[in-house]
Amino acid sequence: MTIKKHNIEKDIAAIVVPEPDAEGLTTLLEGVDATGAPAVLPVVTERPLTIYLNRQEIVTTMTVGDQPQEMAVGFLFNQNMLLSADDISAIDYDDELGVVVVRTAHETDFEDKLQKKIRTSGCAQGTLYGDIMTRFDAVKLPAEGRISTRQIIQLSKTVNMMPSLYLKAGAIHACVLCSGAEPLIYCEDIGRHNAADKVAGYMLLSEISGHDKVFYTTGRLTSEMVIKTVLMDIPILISRSGFTEAGVRLARQAGLTLIGRARGSRFIALAGAERIEFDAPEPDMLDDEEQMSAQRKLYGAKR
Amino acid sequence: MTIKKHNIEKDIAAIVVPEPDAEGLTTLLEGVDATGAPAVLPVVTERPLTIYLNRQEIVTTMTVGDQPQEMAVGFLFNQNMLLSADDISAIDYDDELGVVVVRTAHETDFEDKLQKKIRTSGCAQGTLYGDIMTRFDAVKLPAEGRISTRQIIQLSKTVNMMPSLYLKAGAIHACVLCSGAEPLIYCEDIGRHNAADKVAGYMLLSEISGHDKVFYTTGRLTSEMVIKTVLMDIPILISRSGFTEAGVRLARQAGLTLIGRARGSRFIALAGAERIEFDAPEPDMLDDEEQMSAQRKLYGAKR
Repeated sequence: MTIKKHNIEKDIAAIVVPEPDAEGLTTLLEGVDATGAPAVLPVVTERPLTIYLNRQEIVTTMTVGDQPQEMAVGFLFNQNMLLSADDISAIDYDDELGVVVVRTAHETDFEDKLQKKIRTSGCAQGTLYGDIMTRFDAVKLPAEGRISTRQIIQLSKTVNMMPSLYLKAGAIHACVLCSGAEPLIYCEDIGRHNAADKVAGYMLLSEISGHDKVFYTTGRLTSEMVIKTVLMDIPILISRSGFTEAGVRLARQAGLTLIGRARGSRFIALAGAERIEFDAPEPDMLDDEEQMSAQRKLYGAKR
Repeated sequence: MTIKKHNIEKDIAAIVVPEPDAEGLTTLLEGVDATGAPAVLPVVTERPLTIYLNRQEIVTTMTVGDQPQEMAVGFLFNQNMLLSADDISAIDYDDELGVVVVRTAHETDFEDKLQKKIRTSGCAQGTLYGDIMTRFDAVKLPAEGRISTRQIIQLSKTVNMMPSLYLKAGAIHACVLCSGAEPLIYCEDIGRHNAADKVAGYMLLSEISGHDKVFYTTGRLTSEMVIKTVLMDIPILISRSGFTEAGVRLARQAGLTLIGRARGSRFIALAGAERIEFDAPEPDMLDDEEQMSAQRKLYGAKR
């Protein structure tokens, strides 16, 4: 496979959107509902994908299965095993085996490090944490990023109303790279970290900078999500879900704007509120329960 | 530390319940709301815990921090690294270091296996999967487990209304071992798998059998959650969240009753419906939106 280089910055419209009807992402399964009547439900796929860096097996993760190349590249970048797209010479993917191999022109010192850590520890992922934190500590997020209350409300609404695997089948998380309230790269996966890695992979392969963007996730604002966002150089992170204490602490340390519980016209910011412009929300903005009810009517989703 | 042996079967009432006000589980953090006004929010703790089996480091996981011994034992059991509580000679926990060491009288062959796998692979967790599946395939769930529609509705309501870290701070998952509609062991954690491991640890250390119980989780019904439930020998798994295809496939293979989207008086069963007795729900049972609204009034929770 040759490496795709998108030219995203030139288009304003979203260039990666969910394709909920793509083959292989959902299966119709039969069961019964609470009355005992037959029910048929679209259910998301969950399959193992093993990521290699050159000849080194790195991790096996459960994924919905789309965008394996981008996910592998984003994962290796967010794990500090790849520093830029320039290192990549090829990405090979075998759908049948569920294996993706990211190849670099020269073997990286990360493979050496990895081998050493694997020999001394049960799980390389935990012990590479120190390296990631060294890079995390070095990131200086740009001070000038801005977002307004209206944009936050509009963005949540746009993400929630776009056709997606979530609206079709549920049981999935979304991560969306945005320019203001405009979605650019919208990825979904059963693991919220996989969805974030897919976005990171697209950004790296297409040379999209994060410094003037906004990151939206449906998942909780944990330390890992904050670390990934900061490593992607994105100054603003928004979620409809809640916070953990470590997530907030790391966001404050890095100067990341951290906005949680963003539903309808409400949200809470626990870090970096200086980037928020508090313009009054438009009076006709739906509140979250109205919005959910409107969604149900639109899509007939039973959730 | 000596090993606690509870005598749970003799008491009907729940013996492990959330303690949302326990020290160290939440922190009050200051921020701003959508109008720019100051807001103070309880936020859950997230801290690393490293699990050792004797001298072998196994994994570092992020956890809310309570019940570390039970979580470590349950994790090792669910990973097929421990087969019964009889093997355990001691469990040492160092709160400051965030380390828990499960000691066995004799070094187990799992440590040998682990060492070998670690040498050949990036992450022992992925590659021990084969061993877990061998044990999964061998489990015969009891055919006679039963649950009624009324019990499912009552159980969801009870779990949602009990004081919990979720009601206090959000951003957390619950797993609950139940006898019919009655919660027995109710554990919470930022990772749903950690919450399941805590329950498994309590069951193992207290010699509580799963064959006549029901397992409730707030998390999605993924392959990993189904595997853990089956390894705990529990024939019925209920969630308020949705399904993945692999979760349903494994449930059908093992003969597990898999009930998802359990909210208010609704649910969908995609496996093992023969264990469900469809008695009509009582007319005064609240539907899910009424229930959520009642919860908000009760607890003033802003979610």
